[in-house]
Amino acid sequence: MPLGLVLDLLGTFFFAVSGCLLAARRGFDIIGSLFLGALAGLGGGVIRDLILGEVPSAFDSPVYLAAPAVAAVMVFFLKRSVERMRKPLLVFDAGGLALFCIVGTVKALEVGLNPIASALLGVTTAVGGGMLRDVVANREPQLFDPRDIYAVPAMLGAGITAVVWQADLYSPVAAVAIATVVFGLRVLSLRFGWHIPHASAPWQRYED
Amino acid sequence: MPLGLVLDLLGTFFFAVSGCLLAARRGFDIIGSLFLGALAGLGGGVIRDLILGEVPSAFDSPVYLAAPAVAAVMVFFLKRSVERMRKPLLVFDAGGLALFCIVGTVKALEVGLNPIASALLGVTTAVGGGMLRDVVANREPQLFDPRDIYAVPAMLGAGITAVVWQADLYSPVAAVAIATVVFGLRVLSLRFGWHIPHASAPWQRYED
Amino acid sequence: MPLGLVLDLLGTFFFAVSGCLLAARRGFDIIGSLFLGALAGLGGGVIRDLILGEVPSAFDSPVYLAAPAVAAVMVFFLKRSVERMRKPLLVFDAGGLALFCIVGTVKALEVGLNPIASALLGVTTAVGGGMLRDVVANREPQLFDPRDIYAVPAMLGAGITAVVWQADLYSPVAAVAIATVVFGLRVLSLRFGWHIPHASAPWQRYED
Repeated sequence: MPLGLVLDLLGTFFFAVSGCLLAARRGFDIIGSLFLGALAGLGGGVIRDLILGEVPSAFDSPVYLAAPAVAAVMVFFLKRSVERMRKPLLVFDAGGLALFCIVGTVKALEVGLNPIASALLGVTTAVGGGMLRDVVANREPQLFDPRDIYAVPAMLGAGITAVVWQADLYSPVAAVAIATVVFGLRVLSLRFGWHIPHASAPWQRYED
Repeated sequence: MPLGLVLDLLGTFFFAVSGCLLAARRGFDIIGSLFLGALAGLGGGVIRDLILGEVPSAFDSPVYLAAPAVAAVMVFFLKRSVERMRKPLLVFDAGGLALFCIVGTVKALEVGLNPIASALLGVTTAVGGGMLRDVVANREPQLFDPRDIYAVPAMLGAGITAVVWQADLYSPVAAVAIATVVFGLRVLSLRFGWHIPHASAPWQRYED
Repeated sequence: MPLGLVLDLLGTFFFAVSGCLLAARRGFDIIGSLFLGALAGLGGGVIRDLILGEVPSAFDSPVYLAAPAVAAVMVFFLKRSVERMRKPLLVFDAGGLALFCIVGTVKALEVGLNPIASALLGVTTAVGGGMLRDVVANREPQLFDPRDIYAVPAMLGAGITAVVWQADLYSPVAAVAIATVVFGLRVLSLRFGWHIPHASAPWQRYED
């Protein structure tokens, strides 16, 4: 199996698990879990492929549908109570983020987009599925939580991928290394509350 | 008029009415009603056509715009109080669901997608407009309500349509029969509270 | 620079500012501000280009990315407290609305869509970005606020643009005039509470 497909399927599965875990926490039924998993897992890639003008891979290769199906069954038989699912949800989401920022950037570069647009599409792919998941479940997207960093690791991963690709150094090893950095940065920011400045400067905020 | 167009326009009208009824309940104005009707009625088809790489029919044939316009005027002159509109909303939504799962599947098969992808696109078409309607009106999509079944009838309808098409038995009679089954199943599940298991198994849910 | 690009970039910037202001009010961080600005500024155009079957300009010309970047920095150094940002948000949003209903209609006419479909796409472009902004920030879209008019000025602007274009009278002067009418109508409706009838007729609403 080519590297791109492996990373794409794995990222799809990770995001799908995050969607199914959210469905379980929200009290949805098993088919609601399948759909929220599919939206989280396949949504980012569908947006990516539509922007690239291609038939979305989820509708082209049925193998992609296995990811949310396996995720929904796995979450159904989970050994932990749903109250304790917040952390696993965030960890699986971080795994999807780490892989999709690379996969999306590479696919755009392969199609011939310029490096900046490719990195942008990589970030869109990475944050798109999770954003769709949170929006349809009627909650504020994780991307906007100011207590940790979410988009910054994805932007870093997509940027590094574009640079490495341009330098002709992209390889399975490079992909795994970049994914590890993105995943680590995201999970450490959750653990230690790493965050960045507010949307308006503090010395302005309480003025007037 | 070809069968596909009739079913598509009728489904568009049913979903548009559901959007306008929701707008009335939420206190939107008449143009808000028109827009929510248009989003509910045309949204699923636009998503379907974008995935198929075609110009969305709503932007190709202005006749589609008549559906939300008629729906908004009809709801404006409705004889019942908005408090009592919950059931009509669900019934019209069920009508759209029943038709769109067939129309979407057939259109995908005609374009040449494989049967599994076609059924998936049929389901996406069927649940897409209602999901957009609920998401922009800032409420949880009906698809995720665990007290009845919503996606299951659509999945069944799309699957049967794909099988019937492959067996070369698709006809107006077959379409009406499938739509009746999907509509009936959805409405009966509302009436009798038919539902399916939760996203996590009950014997796991309170463990730890 | 061609007229279309100037209006498109300016509209993108106005909507991006509205997104960054909303991010500041909601307590998002600076990257959340950049993303909400990008979604508000670029979202309408991406939907427009996907429907037209083109590569979205945001992914084609990196210059579009400057708009949300400048907006996020500008909002960060804002001299006013975030509590007072409601009015600026609405005014910048009105500016984007006024420009995008023209830009979207003209782009569709240039591609060869019929005038009705072109005006519809103009309205979709104008209301799309703001709707995405409000939906992902988990609040009811401004379009649905019944206390003033939002879509009506955009529909008027798109309709006039289509008529003027068909009459071969479209020019920079015409564009500025139409934009002024749309912007003025929207802002005056906010100032004086101009509104239109409810989605259901008043004499029906309290019946039963």
